Amino acid sequence: MKILTVDLGDRSYPIFIGQDLLAQKNLVTPYIKAKQVMIVTNETIAPLYLDQARALFSDFQVQQVILPDGEVFKNLTVLNTIFDELLTQRCDRQVTLVALGGGVIGDMAGFAAACYQRGVPFIQIPTTLLAQVDSSVGGKTGVNHPQGKNMIGAFHQPQCVLIDTNTLKTLEPRQLSAGLAEVVKYGLINDTSLFDWLEQNTQHLLALEPEAIAYAVERSCTDKADVVAQDEKEKGMRALLNLGHTFGHTIEAGLGYGEVLHGEAVAIGMVLAAKMSQRLGWMDADSVARVETILKAMHLPTVIPQGLTPEQMLELMQVDKKVQAGKIRLILMKGIGQSLVVDDYPAEVLKQTLAEGF
Amino acid sequence: MKILTVDLGDRSYPIFIGQDLLAQKNLVTPYIKAKQVMIVTNETIAPLYLDQARALFSDFQVQQVILPDGEVFKNLTVLNTIFDELLTQRCDRQVTLVALGGGVIGDMAGFAAACYQRGVPFIQIPTTLLAQVDSSVGGKTGVNHPQGKNMIGAFHQPQCVLIDTNTLKTLEPRQLSAGLAEVVKYGLINDTSLFDWLEQNTQHLLALEPEAIAYAVERSCTDKADVVAQDEKEKGMRALLNLGHTFGHTIEAGLGYGEVLHGEAVAIGMVLAAKMSQRLGWMDADSVARVETILKAMHLPTVIPQGLTPEQMLELMQVDKKVQAGKIRLILMKGIGQSLVVDDYPAEVLKQTLAEGF
Repeated sequence: MKILTVDLGDRSYPIFIGQDLLAQKNLVTPYIKAKQVMIVTNETIAPLYLDQARALFSDFQVQQVILPDGEVFKNLTVLNTIFDELLTQRCDRQVTLVALGGGVIGDMAGFAAACYQRGVPFIQIPTTLLAQVDSSVGGKTGVNHPQGKNMIGAFHQPQCVLIDTNTLKTLEPRQLSAGLAEVVKYGLINDTSLFDWLEQNTQHLLALEPEAIAYAVERSCTDKADVVAQDEKEKGMRALLNLGHTFGHTIEAGLGYGEVLHGEAVAIGMVLAAKMSQRLGWMDADSVARVETILKAMHLPTVIPQGLTPEQMLELMQVDKKVQAGKIRLILMKGIGQSLVVDDYPAEVLKQTLAEGF
Repeated sequence: MKILTVDLGDRSYPIFIGQDLLAQKNLVTPYIKAKQVMIVTNETIAPLYLDQARALFSDFQVQQVILPDGEVFKNLTVLNTIFDELLTQRCDRQVTLVALGGGVIGDMAGFAAACYQRGVPFIQIPTTLLAQVDSSVGGKTGVNHPQGKNMIGAFHQPQCVLIDTNTLKTLEPRQLSAGLAEVVKYGLINDTSLFDWLEQNTQHLLALEPEAIAYAVERSCTDKADVVAQDEKEKGMRALLNLGHTFGHTIEAGLGYGEVLHGEAVAIGMVLAAKMSQRLGWMDADSVARVETILKAMHLPTVIPQGLTPEQMLELMQVDKKVQAGKIRLILMKGIGQSLVVDDYPAEVLKQTLAEGF
């Protein structure tokens, strides 16, 4: 087992990474304040891991709420069913919420924890690769609005993150690939050696070889924890973690949540970012090709899906959280491992990039 | 004009108190970050003060959203209409929300500001006495859940609070009385000389005499700001501000939101707290009578309304935010101006107090 720390002063917390961690009570018990625990999970994960999770918290009064599975349910209405259950079970301000599932469950349980009685503690137990390498770390929580992804939310850090890489064995291949997109992202942002390693280990990762998976998860969490510790509330460099995400969110919202997976949309977004960077003369054709090649090798899409037009994309990009004073801020690249925040570019370059992104 | 400060380190903010402040641009302008301003108000306040408020922010791009009026609309569904408007108007992360109205508007606009894009700034312009002396100061925001009041929310401090006491001239007498209940509360908590002053000045306050009103607002804000500065997130002494509120919330939720005004429910709650304190041998009959007398003089109710039973009250009290480990924490009194948090008392005493509270 590896233990990393997200260093945030008195809100610092550990990330436990390893196999069979769902069986280790001693890891989570110190992070629970009182007697009540409410596990939030979904219909897919419940039959697979809810019993193990309940056993993990068997020293406490465990309640559960099972949500429908999918990004399309990440909204205020479904969020309210968590509040319903918390109140029906008379959970007080000392209750600990547990997010057992992928990114959607983590975002919703975390946001419910941020808001219930103005804030209660929570623990992340991510069961998808995407949640393990990205969304369970860093305290971003929230739900979608029909007009924009993650538009309603809070920064609320967990008490600890428990990553049992065994849970990836039950993950659909498509979900595994979606998670790998976020690992590639860390390479592109500022970790060239991770990118090189990923090129050489794509097949090991797709085959779920434990050593390769452990390395990818640990390295991703380390990279993310570093950024979050320096800029928790995204006043500056944390924005780099949104590489591929402004394009990606637009694709997700435009097609309707759930049509493409978040990681798939981010993969397409990273290709668009690379191509736009090339168009600006910042990135050479070889590097752009490497980005496309590795994502394709991971079975990820690299072009904007049918059903969207460049005009719709531009329209939707206007409401992304990265917009300031009408300017769409993008994360672009000066090369692999050299990302930067850009809000000053010719509008025409963005239009051309979108027009040729299909 | 008086300027008070809520001292919270880098989140400190001023409270401006005076007449005609809605006409003074120079007060609020320094607290607005960028170009966009979204005024949140309701159908009652809009015809009275929206034009003045729009003029106050005329150096900015002003948008508005007008909610229905009343506690019954303080829920997640109506909250979402604020998000709808923010997104329709393409408000970005730099937008400043303005709460123009009473406690419900302040709580909802503040909570919307806490959650929109994971947090944007907001300004409080309270137009009711209750909001001016209590809810606009201190950063508590949120909405109700059918099973409990203010169960979903956040701590989110405003950039500044602008209290124009002229707005009280259009307030219904019943609403004025409800606000006075919260002023009495500060006296009962720890400000005996305020309580004495209120006994002597009840009629001046009901007649809206400017000097009396100014003093009551300023003194209340000073008392509240002191407590909030010492205990922003209610880990300790801030709980004293809930005097009368656990009983009060129970009455509000039990009768259905909007049946009694919040301040009216708090008035009844303070009488119950006084009577329970007397039952415990902590408060003498004379002091309890003074509490009842002043509230009656302010035209406030002092007994639990028809339609609730002691059993329902007890049941509902179990889900209040002040419950910990099954114990209902109450704010009681050792005398006027000597409140304290109590969670260790004979259950029978609470039952008897409720049984005789009608």
